[in-house]
This record gives sequence, C-alpha cells and structure tokens, in this order.
Amino acid sequence: MTQHFDPKGPVIGVDIGGTKVAAGIVDASGKILTQLRTPMPANDGEEAGLKAVTSAIDSLSAAETTKPQAQIKAIGICAPGPLDPKSGVVLNPPNLPCWRNFPLAARISDIYRVPVKVDNDANAAALAETIWGAARGYYYVFYATLGTGIGTGIVFDGRIYHGRTGAAGEGGHVSIDYRGPVCPCGKHGCIEVLAAGPAIAVRARGRVDANPERGAALLALAQGKVEAVTSEMVGKAYVAGDTLAQEILQETADLLTIWLGNIVDLLDPDVLVIGGGVAAMLHPFFAEIKRLLPTWCVNPRASEIPLVLAHYGADAGIAGGAALFSELASE
Amino acid sequence: MTQHFDPKGPVIGVDIGGTKVAAGIVDASGKILTQLRTPMPANDGEEAGLKAVTSAIDSLSAAETTKPQAQIKAIGICAPGPLDPKSGVVLNPPNLPCWRNFPLAARISDIYRVPVKVDNDANAAALAETIWGAARGYYYVFYATLGTGIGTGIVFDGRIYHGRTGAAGEGGHVSIDYRGPVCPCGKHGCIEVLAAGPAIAVRARGRVDANPERGAALLALAQGKVEAVTSEMVGKAYVAGDTLAQEILQETADLLTIWLGNIVDLLDPDVLVIGGGVAAMLHPFFAEIKRLLPTWCVNPRASEIPLVLAHYGADAGIAGGAALFSELASE
Repeated sequence: MTQHFDPKGPVIGVDIGGTKVAAGIVDASGKILTQLRTPMPANDGEEAGLKAVTSAIDSLSAAETTKPQAQIKAIGICAPGPLDPKSGVVLNPPNLPCWRNFPLAARISDIYRVPVKVDNDANAAALAETIWGAARGYYYVFYATLGTGIGTGIVFDGRIYHGRTGAAGEGGHVSIDYRGPVCPCGKHGCIEVLAAGPAIAVRARGRVDANPERGAALLALAQGKVEAVTSEMVGKAYVAGDTLAQEILQETADLLTIWLGNIVDLLDPDVLVIGGGVAAMLHPFFAEIKRLLPTWCVNPRASEIPLVLAHYGADAGIAGGAALFSELASE
Repeated sequence: MTQHFDPKGPVIGVDIGGTKVAAGIVDASGKILTQLRTPMPANDGEEAGLKAVTSAIDSLSAAETTKPQAQIKAIGICAPGPLDPKSGVVLNPPNLPCWRNFPLAARISDIYRVPVKVDNDANAAALAETIWGAARGYYYVFYATLGTGIGTGIVFDGRIYHGRTGAAGEGGHVSIDYRGPVCPCGKHGCIEVLAAGPAIAVRARGRVDANPERGAALLALAQGKVEAVTSEMVGKAYVAGDTLAQEILQETADLLTIWLGNIVDLLDPDVLVIGGGVAAMLHPFFAEIKRLLPTWCVNPRASEIPLVLAHYGADAGIAGGAALFSELASE
C-alpha cells in the first residue's frame, strides 16, 4: 500500500449483508491485501447501520496504521438489492430493514472524501470475475452465485448490464416451473426456490423422511433429526460416497441445467461462471451439466460455452466492491 | 425512389420464410414503398432457393421499371435461424432444407453489387420496431413475435444483441414449465409450445372436446370438427363474445405474463413489444398482462414498463431486413 493518494492505487471493497459487513483493501490486480468482518445491525436505525460500515472501513485502515482517505482511490460497496446503482441509494432490501431509500454512496463519500459506488452483490461479483477472475478475457459473461439464494450478474464488455432501472440480472428469479413451489419472492418455480441451499436441504429432508434407511448417512450427520439436515450435510455425505446425497445433488444440477439453457437461449454468453457457498459441492456435477446443456438449448453451439467455478469464494463481495472501480468498469 | 445510387436512399428488405419470399423497397423513414410475395421452394436445391430470392428482388425492381443496383443502397434479408449474422451464412434452418451452410449474403452481394446483411427474422423485426416502430426512442428493447412459433429479438442502443455466435434472443424457447409439454425444439415447456398459435388451437380443441356445449361457437366455426379448430377461430369467437374463447385467450395471456416476468427480471427492458399474427387477438389482454406482470417479477418497477403492440404486421420481415441498414444499426 502506498503512502499517498494514488489514482491507480488500491480500493476498499465493502460487502454489506444482512448479518455482517466485510471490508478489504484490494489492489489493482484484484488481490485482497487485508480484510475483516464486523456484525451488521440490520434491524437498528439507519445511522447504526451506517456506523457499522464506517467502523469496518476505519478498522481496516487502522489495521494498516494509516488513514484510508490519504491513500485509497475509492470505496466500492456491494449491498443487497433493490438499490439504484446510478444514485447509490439503497431502496428497500428485505434483509436490511435499517435502510429505506438510504443514500449510502453519498453518505460514505461525504465522510471519506473519495468516490463511492454501490451495486448489487451478484452484479459486483460478476464484474470481479470478469476483470480478475474466472471470466477474465470474456466479452459476454453470465455469473451466478448459489447460496442461501441465487443471485446473478450479467457483464458485457467489462461493464455490468443494469437495464432500465438497475434491476436487471435477477436470474435467480427466472421461473422454470410456474406450477411449482412458491419462492420467498412470491413467484412460483424460480430457480432460487428449486436449487439454492435451502432447496437442497428441503429436498434432502423429504428424501430422508421417505426412506430413512437410504438416508442413514444424512441422518447420522444430523444427529438423527430429519429436520436438522442441511445442504452442507448433503455436500459432506456426497464427498463420503453416499448415494442418496449424490442423487439429491444430481437433481439440483439437472434443474440448474434447465435454467442455464434458458439463459443461454436468451443471452448466448461467452462463459457461465458459478460461485457462492453451494457452488463447490456442485462442482463435481459441472461436466454433466455441460454435457446436458445442449438438450435444454436451441443454441446450436451451446456445447462450446465454458461452465466454470468462480475464482472468488466468500470474499467475492469485497472483490466485487473493488471491481466497481476497476478500469474496465469505468465510464 | 431516386434514379441514382443514394447512400441515404431506399433499401430492399427481403423476408425469406419456409413457404414464401416477400420483398419490398423501404425508405429511410421505414415506409414500405412497394412490396410483393413469391413462393419459396424450400425443399428444392440451393440454387432454386437462391433463384426465388433473386426473382423477388428482380420483380420488385421491374415493378419500379428500373434496375435495383442503380438506385438502392443495400439489401437486408431476414431468414429463419440458425444463421450467422456476421458472415451472412444460413446454417441449417429446419424449415429451409434447401440451404445448408449457404453463404446467402455473399451470393446476393455478388449478383447485385450492393452491401447485403442477413439476420434472424425476429431480430430484424425487433430492430425495425426500435428504429421506426413501436419501440422508437427506447434504449433497451425486448420484442416478441407470436405466430406459428414465438420468435424474439433484443435490441440495445439501436443495435441487435447477438451474443457470442448470433444465437441470442431465442426467448421463445425459454421454458417456464420444465415438466410440461414437449416443444418441437425438444425442450419441455418453452413458451412457444405453450402460447404460440398451435398451442392456442390445441388448448381450444381440448376444451371443446371436454365440453362441446360450451364449445358450440368454436365448433360452428370449425363446421363441427373439433380437430379443425384453429387459433384464428378462437380469435373470431372471442370477438363475437364467446366466453370459452375468452378463457382460452386469458390462459394464453397468463402464460405470456409469467414468461415476460422472467424476461423483465433478467433484462429490465425499457419496453416490451408484441407482434406477429397472434398478437392482435391477444391485444385486448395486454392491460391485464401489464397489471399482473409485477406479480411475476422481483423488479420493483416492472409496472412502469410499457407493453405495446408492434407497429409492423405481416410486413415486419421486409421492414426488418431494411432496418439492418438503418443508421442506428450501422457499426
């Protein structure tokens, strides 16, 4: 880290979630030099929420024993949507009740006197993958993060595709089963309610309940309680060779294949990047998804599209925040 | 029409389908000055197919009593996909067996000595709507043509979005019901197999069969033969006040709403334009589609997106071909 302000210098990336704030200093090559996490009081007042963010930024600079405003180029922030990336206003995210139409970018910029951008977490992570990660060098990028929910981001020519209002790229709520289960968003059959972590857990509990004998490995991990089975346990059981866990993940992969087919038929991307907490446990199924993708596409060259694991893991939000100020992403 | 070559002069737009070739002279304001149709021998040799196209172009200029190459700026051609819009090669369209990897743009350009572009029919029609039609002035445009199939086109900033290989914008094959009926493309539950003209006819026949009394109006139109009921008859019966036809079209509109919700969540467009032969009979349902769209979107501002009928009707392909040479669309 340089001692003076440097327009090509490091950027602070901040990742605001419903329970924590993560912040890191990211260099121009996308390397996270230092990072920390603090709790996010999502249900307190708007100033308490802001204080959590500034505390994280301040602690980060304290850890570096210098003041951030003297050195950093900018602060890029990922936050849960809906938000307006143009104005940097956080609108009404369900998991951040503390903020309603909160001008996050303007407030942070006032305090630190550096440029500040705010974007949706999946959009920002998609950009980080494009600039520094698994989608580097690709023009048309589709990124999905599989975790508690499914977030997606679309990047064209090194820039986030925002659409009319900044609400584009909500691929997790593309429905492939309109008569299927209800998603927390209110729609039926969104890929999020079919294939995110909680959906894997629900599917696993149903299968264990229906056949406790076949579910023995999962039951053991859940200490005998069907209702305690989680998606992480399915991942563990699969790695240990459990065939039921294998089937559950295969079904999840099949649903993702159908969904990716829709994405490919609409967008014909150069690359499909999958990240998030659930991605690693599905990685062994990527080859099969890629093999079956052409059967769920009319695109005659779908088989050529790489399907790759994201470069960034739990720190995707920090890298994403910083990527908002990368050169490719600049106006 | 001017007597000499004019770089701002009219363009010939050609629309090649499985059964006919339509060609027209289109001025710089998108007005079709003259047009004609000839049969397309889709099952004969590649030269016979080419001859049908050149005959249409020649007849057009004969109708104008002058040679096209002396006056027109260019020839823009719509053809069924898959094709490569970059090279102007028609790949392997199911309904044009005469052409396999056929260099249509190069062949036509050799004959007439003017620039030639070839694109997918729905893409080109989307561009014509953006430049001259119902989507004029909008930046992010989603266009769908509802007919025997469902074709779609995406236009950003006055340019067709092609994706990696030119196969983007196949929105008619976005599946909303992966366990549903099989589409001719092989996927299940594509909006095309649920809501295009043949799907309306299939739904109508099923409803008439199940309840011939309620289906009396449709049966009368089909001269008593359930299997002869067509989507056009459903449209006619609806206009005449038949409640079963109303229900059938409402169900179709509901499925289109779900599908458009997916599109909006991915693309957040400025406008949704619906054209094609089935569009007019669904037009009375547009207000209801627009009202229900927000329940099938997470986009918080979906209700603001206009849903409009296309400007071009049966001549969308001619206008689309010409639009490929419009100023906005040029590189």
